[in-house]
Amino acid sequence: MDFQLTHALEVLERTPAAFRALLAGLPEAWTAPNEGPDTFSAFDNVGHLIHGERADWIPRARIILAQGPDRRFEPYDRFAQYRESEGKGLADLLDDFARLRSENLATLRSWRLGEPELALEGEHPAFGPVTLRQLLAAWVAHDLGHVAQTARVLAKQYRDAVGPWRAYLPVLDR
Amino acid sequence: MDFQLTHALEVLERTPAAFRALLAGLPEAWTAPNEGPDTFSAFDNVGHLIHGERADWIPRARIILAQGPDRRFEPYDRFAQYRESEGKGLADLLDDFARLRSENLATLRSWRLGEPELALEGEHPAFGPVTLRQLLAAWVAHDLGHVAQTARVLAKQYRDAVGPWRAYLPVLDR
Repeated sequence: MDFQLTHALEVLERTPAAFRALLAGLPEAWTAPNEGPDTFSAFDNVGHLIHGERADWIPRARIILAQGPDRRFEPYDRFAQYRESEGKGLADLLDDFARLRSENLATLRSWRLGEPELALEGEHPAFGPVTLRQLLAAWVAHDLGHVAQTARVLAKQYRDAVGPWRAYLPVLDR
Repeated sequence: MDFQLTHALEVLERTPAAFRALLAGLPEAWTAPNEGPDTFSAFDNVGHLIHGERADWIPRARIILAQGPDRRFEPYDRFAQYRESEGKGLADLLDDFARLRSENLATLRSWRLGEPELALEGEHPAFGPVTLRQLLAAWVAHDLGHVAQTARVLAKQYRDAVGPWRAYLPVLDR
């Protein structure tokens, strides 16, 4: 499927509601456990997406669009949410994510991007040159990856409880 | 995490809304593609969950609770949705799933299951003896597995569009 901005927006605007539908009101018995050291709980996943709204996708798009002499992105802190989510509840995080995403999509729409802008390049600290089109596609796939990761970490809490069904439920061993 | 019926219900009652938030209104460009032969599109995932509501979880629980002489479950048809979803739109399927799930959870709650019932056994056609507790835990994990699978098949539509980000997005190659 080729990248189209309208398609990307269709997913990006749904993600906060998908997290809310899946997680709002769930007790910590579900939302606090992770998949092992340096992995994310359901709660961590939402905090990670919030950090992305603040520090990653739109700030990187701005660097590309500015086409200044230094187009290198700041390295991304995958574990910022351990610090930034401290003292917050999941309901706060779901609200923060929805608000920040809505603001960011308003910004994105306001740019009225066309083919010439989507082809502009920035410099990823690990990969080198990347286009705005690739950045926006990665934003979409990253959202969906964290929906999948969140469902998986929840499912894994029942890895033992399902007994022999574990053989039929590959999500429990990913 | 040990199985508790209240925990299981917390997930089971959220799944239809999670699918609705993620998928309602998305065009077929997103919802129709699958991951290759004999795999499910987003649309197929919802149809598969509907078939499970009709033919799998509650019917199998009834077999266990009846404790009749033959407690063997009917084999499950993993591809029934290719036939049963024919001619339906995604909005229909999301409505059907929500209605059937709500009816099935009302049935499940009406049984007021306690420890003795949860320990009763049926016979899985492949695994042999399984308890009602394991069946209900598998229902939960199966839901979450299909949330993850649905997010993954959507994400894969952008496998090429993300360019070098593919290396950082493992969901694209699962």
